[in-house]
Amino acid sequence: MTRPPADRADSLRRSEIRVLFDAAARLGDDVIRLEVGEPSFTTPAHVIEAAARAARDGHTGYGPNGGLLSLRELLADKLLGVNRIEASVDEIVVTPGAMNGLYSVYLALLDPGDEVLLPTPGFPNMDEMVRLLGGRPVFYRLSADAGFLPDAAALEELVTERTKVLFVNTPANPTGAVYPPSLMEGLVELAARRDLWLVCDEVYDEMVLSPDCVHTAAGPFDPDGRVVTVCSFSKVYAMTGWRVGYVAAPAALADVLRTLQEPLVSCPSTISQKAAEAALTGPRAPYEAMLDAYRRRRVVALEVVEAAGLRAVAPDGTLYMLVDVSDAGLDDLDFALGLLRSHSVSVAPGSVFGPAGRGWARISLAAESEAIAEGLRRLAKALHEQEAERIGIGS
Amino acid sequence: MTRPPADRADSLRRSEIRVLFDAAARLGDDVIRLEVGEPSFTTPAHVIEAAARAARDGHTGYGPNGGLLSLRELLADKLLGVNRIEASVDEIVVTPGAMNGLYSVYLALLDPGDEVLLPTPGFPNMDEMVRLLGGRPVFYRLSADAGFLPDAAALEELVTERTKVLFVNTPANPTGAVYPPSLMEGLVELAARRDLWLVCDEVYDEMVLSPDCVHTAAGPFDPDGRVVTVCSFSKVYAMTGWRVGYVAAPAALADVLRTLQEPLVSCPSTISQKAAEAALTGPRAPYEAMLDAYRRRRVVALEVVEAAGLRAVAPDGTLYMLVDVSDAGLDDLDFALGLLRSHSVSVAPGSVFGPAGRGWARISLAAESEAIAEGLRRLAKALHEQEAERIGIGS
Repeated sequence: MTRPPADRADSLRRSEIRVLFDAAARLGDDVIRLEVGEPSFTTPAHVIEAAARAARDGHTGYGPNGGLLSLRELLADKLLGVNRIEASVDEIVVTPGAMNGLYSVYLALLDPGDEVLLPTPGFPNMDEMVRLLGGRPVFYRLSADAGFLPDAAALEELVTERTKVLFVNTPANPTGAVYPPSLMEGLVELAARRDLWLVCDEVYDEMVLSPDCVHTAAGPFDPDGRVVTVCSFSKVYAMTGWRVGYVAAPAALADVLRTLQEPLVSCPSTISQKAAEAALTGPRAPYEAMLDAYRRRRVVALEVVEAAGLRAVAPDGTLYMLVDVSDAGLDDLDFALGLLRSHSVSVAPGSVFGPAGRGWARISLAAESEAIAEGLRRLAKALHEQEAERIGIGS
Repeated sequence: MTRPPADRADSLRRSEIRVLFDAAARLGDDVIRLEVGEPSFTTPAHVIEAAARAARDGHTGYGPNGGLLSLRELLADKLLGVNRIEASVDEIVVTPGAMNGLYSVYLALLDPGDEVLLPTPGFPNMDEMVRLLGGRPVFYRLSADAGFLPDAAALEELVTERTKVLFVNTPANPTGAVYPPSLMEGLVELAARRDLWLVCDEVYDEMVLSPDCVHTAAGPFDPDGRVVTVCSFSKVYAMTGWRVGYVAAPAALADVLRTLQEPLVSCPSTISQKAAEAALTGPRAPYEAMLDAYRRRRVVALEVVEAAGLRAVAPDGTLYMLVDVSDAGLDDLDFALGLLRSHSVSVAPGSVFGPAGRGWARISLAAESEAIAEGLRRLAKALHEQEAERIGIGS
């Protein structure tokens, strides 16, 4: 190879979830896959057929930067109904997935050296994209004792002159926490007081699993146009492969995002956008059935956790649950690889999710109930074996 | 709004093609649209049906970073057959459109202040993305007298210590030039001699219109892994709305591109990738019919150019042709807006394509032959009117 790539390419990290994923895939069908980060359902048939119809009707050309108007009109209704956010069609930007939505938001907001407050445990790609753009990730720690909810006062102590963005994720990956209204209000107040942008990742907004819980967005508390909301069709509508997400942002920022879309990706897939329209206007029954399944699996998972003497924080939303594996006395990647080798169960090692993920493993509710139960039982067994070995009472 | 967006957002330019596009759209159906940058054909039916079948079969989830293996295997064959490039599946990275492919290549290669040699007239998004990433675009001028082909010696004079990338586009937008083998060989030699990456945009590779002309890629001349090839399904297969492009790069760079894909866009649409597979394996007749149509329109366009006394360089490939409008004595955006208002013909103003585009207008062969002919006749009329007015013999 000729001259080396850019310096920023050196700091890239390969996701350790992918390491587990690839190792599990090599071992074949006998592995219980609990590391997976996508719904166990395929896209509902009515969505697939609507996309095919739209393509046959000639919707196969470029769409406008920022998304089809027909989709943005439907999203304005969705944002009002689900997120309680009033956004005009000019304040909504459709992106090829929420990941690209988040990347383009950081591209629009960050100058080199700007700091971004990120949760840990939290989704690792945030850290990566902030660093790619010359920003500096500053982690705020979420503790299991506080139900993985942030403490606004502790968070404020991390704000410096260079802090530009407070990133919040609710319902949260990997913790499953759903932030209550008072917390959301407090976080927006903090952002306003310290003049920060608040970027709220709500890609699991309609995946609330706990019966006494509702999703609360940041947008409704926004006093002056500083909240940016990022949503997705991937998880809620079982549409990960179609790549459709969207951003609601103040009009001036939305305009920047639309302009940035041209050199970044040109536009989202027109066919996928028509599929997304069908997801919003079609029957709700498939989504309710999925949600029911996740809710049942959550109950099963919590029962096994209790019976097996595991420590976990009950997730209120998303597809995920963190299980404490610190008693193994091992690096969590090593524990996860050992669990895979010796017990044929794959989980996502917690340290993937930043420094406060250390000592945890993420399991996914995308597997069937029986697989989740058996996987957790084997995880408990592996943990006890390791613990016994560590304190010298093992074989 | 709170704190302003990043400095880089200030330098964004709204495409003047979009200005024309929007103005033409407002004027309605009577406008002859010659500014359009996409095929006049919709995606062939067999591609649409294959995508729908794949989705019904469950291909609706995430694919791997860098694209489906099944697609990359087909692309290895395509690259060998069409571009004469030997690339293994690990050296091919599928992206959501060639635009994102190019963006991610620059993201991987550029450090702040690195210079990129870009052609003018050339595609404006290159300039934009290089600046977004902190790079510095340095233009090399293509002149009509040289058939819009670059002069390697003149090009070499622009190389400095900071030059990192030589960007080449063949068949070229907006000039329609198809670079001959000796030129391609010379450009790769220059890149090797001065230790530059050569990024070759070949998104029109199968759209050669001139009977005595073939496409020549840069890759076959690559001595040591410094050529990066970017291709697309958009134009050749009339699939602009599906967003599928791909990059062939040396393995180490391809690995960086795959890793960057996760925080940038996660992965390309799985459904669109299955559509792309069908485009490669299905019947060729629809594409040959499209190409025949473009070839016929090119002949018509050249006849009218000659009959109307216009100056143009006959395009050998792509969908485009540049027409000299400098005799109008007007800024070309003003000329284009005047042409639209007074004669209901929309063209892309040449200055969109960088400094050497000034005084030209780009017309597209995406329109029907009769519309192209009538549009060019009206353009000639507008030009003569302006010229007459300018030299004082008008009304």
